[in-house]
Amino acid sequence: MTGGRAGGGSGRRVRVEALAPVMVLGPREARHLQVLRLAPGATVLVFDGQGAQAQATLAELDAGRAVLHLGEASEAAAETPQPLTLGVALLKGDKLADVVRAATELGVARVQLLVTRRADAREIGAQKLLRLNRVAEEASKQSRRAVTPDVLAPVSLSEWHWEGQLFVAQPGAEARLTDRLDWSGPVALLTGPEGGLTDDEVLSLRQRGAVAVTLGPRILRAETAPVALLGAVAALGV
Amino acid sequence: MTGGRAGGGSGRRVRVEALAPVMVLGPREARHLQVLRLAPGATVLVFDGQGAQAQATLAELDAGRAVLHLGEASEAAAETPQPLTLGVALLKGDKLADVVRAATELGVARVQLLVTRRADAREIGAQKLLRLNRVAEEASKQSRRAVTPDVLAPVSLSEWHWEGQLFVAQPGAEARLTDRLDWSGPVALLTGPEGGLTDDEVLSLRQRGAVAVTLGPRILRAETAPVALLGAVAALGV
Repeated sequence: MTGGRAGGGSGRRVRVEALAPVMVLGPREARHLQVLRLAPGATVLVFDGQGAQAQATLAELDAGRAVLHLGEASEAAAETPQPLTLGVALLKGDKLADVVRAATELGVARVQLLVTRRADAREIGAQKLLRLNRVAEEASKQSRRAVTPDVLAPVSLSEWHWEGQLFVAQPGAEARLTDRLDWSGPVALLTGPEGGLTDDEVLSLRQRGAVAVTLGPRILRAETAPVALLGAVAALGV
Repeated sequence: MTGGRAGGGSGRRVRVEALAPVMVLGPREARHLQVLRLAPGATVLVFDGQGAQAQATLAELDAGRAVLHLGEASEAAAETPQPLTLGVALLKGDKLADVVRAATELGVARVQLLVTRRADAREIGAQKLLRLNRVAEEASKQSRRAVTPDVLAPVSLSEWHWEGQLFVAQPGAEARLTDRLDWSGPVALLTGPEGGLTDDEVLSLRQRGAVAVTLGPRILRAETAPVALLGAVAALGV
């Protein structure tokens, strides 16, 4: 259950300005491909950071430049451009299974369980964690993903180290996820427990760089919020 | 179970260019307020069609103009600027209850049950319909909405007459809901049954003006799609 990188484990992901039949990259990207020990004929996944991605074949490579030929949209196109993590507070009963199932369909690379001030539990049994990972595996197959998300054992919110951008759904927030989302790096989304995160928790997250975003003016159940937030990402086509 | 108009049944909703401390409206809007038999001192709900709304007090009114003073964000601010309808294919078991519950939290004014080619059922019992309306009522209270959505008895997809824009979630669609959404009129969203709508059904809807929109490149369960699509709307702050 190490972090499964979206797009497969090969790491052969190349960012391009835009997807085009022939894509020419500069010295820096060429060096990157050499470090990956790629040679002409190799297949890579190209992505534009805006949600478009496809397979491409490396046609030429030297220290000065790389030329890629666009291939077909691949199986990996079912994955987000960069890994998408859902952080979710521990919830009672089967709610976490429902969240994990929907989150898997909606493209997360991992689910990080979190202990928050008002979370329904402080810990989770090994059997339940195993079961949540099985739910992710089944949902992954059903939604025809190549990647099975990892459901990671809970850590306390204050000790969670997310990668890239973090968006936290917060009643009263005015920022819109869709205005702020940037796929140049990993993306993490966070929703709280029944009763919400405390003001202090949100303040602390914001001090660490998180952006509080709206999910509309109504009160959502803790198990609805993550699906809604992930839906907003999916509705962008990623 | 008549159509509950979002924002309450009073109909005292006034569109303005933008929310401002003092808003001056022209003859046409003034006439509208007179038709509603409003007098200075009356409270109305002003909205800008972009998702912002608040209470306002009518300060002056004659045939030539109306002056409104902005009040506080109101209870009714929990409602979308125009009625939001979810059309959903009949699903098995308790799935419809789950959809109705989440849809209520996410602000729908009504849920129209639909019989589609691949729907799990052709009809629904009176008891079940009653139960779904009770689910909507409970969820409405829990999410602190002033409006209880109506869950309407199923009609066949071809006989459904929606109001305003209709967006249908369709695998392979490229249009984005968030790019097309326009609150100058009612909005309807449609998701299909397990197995999806048929190509013919989608074609027919498009011929009637519907816009097919993406929910990302993965396969979603029929009960996840409506929550995801409604989440995309809620994440815009409405």
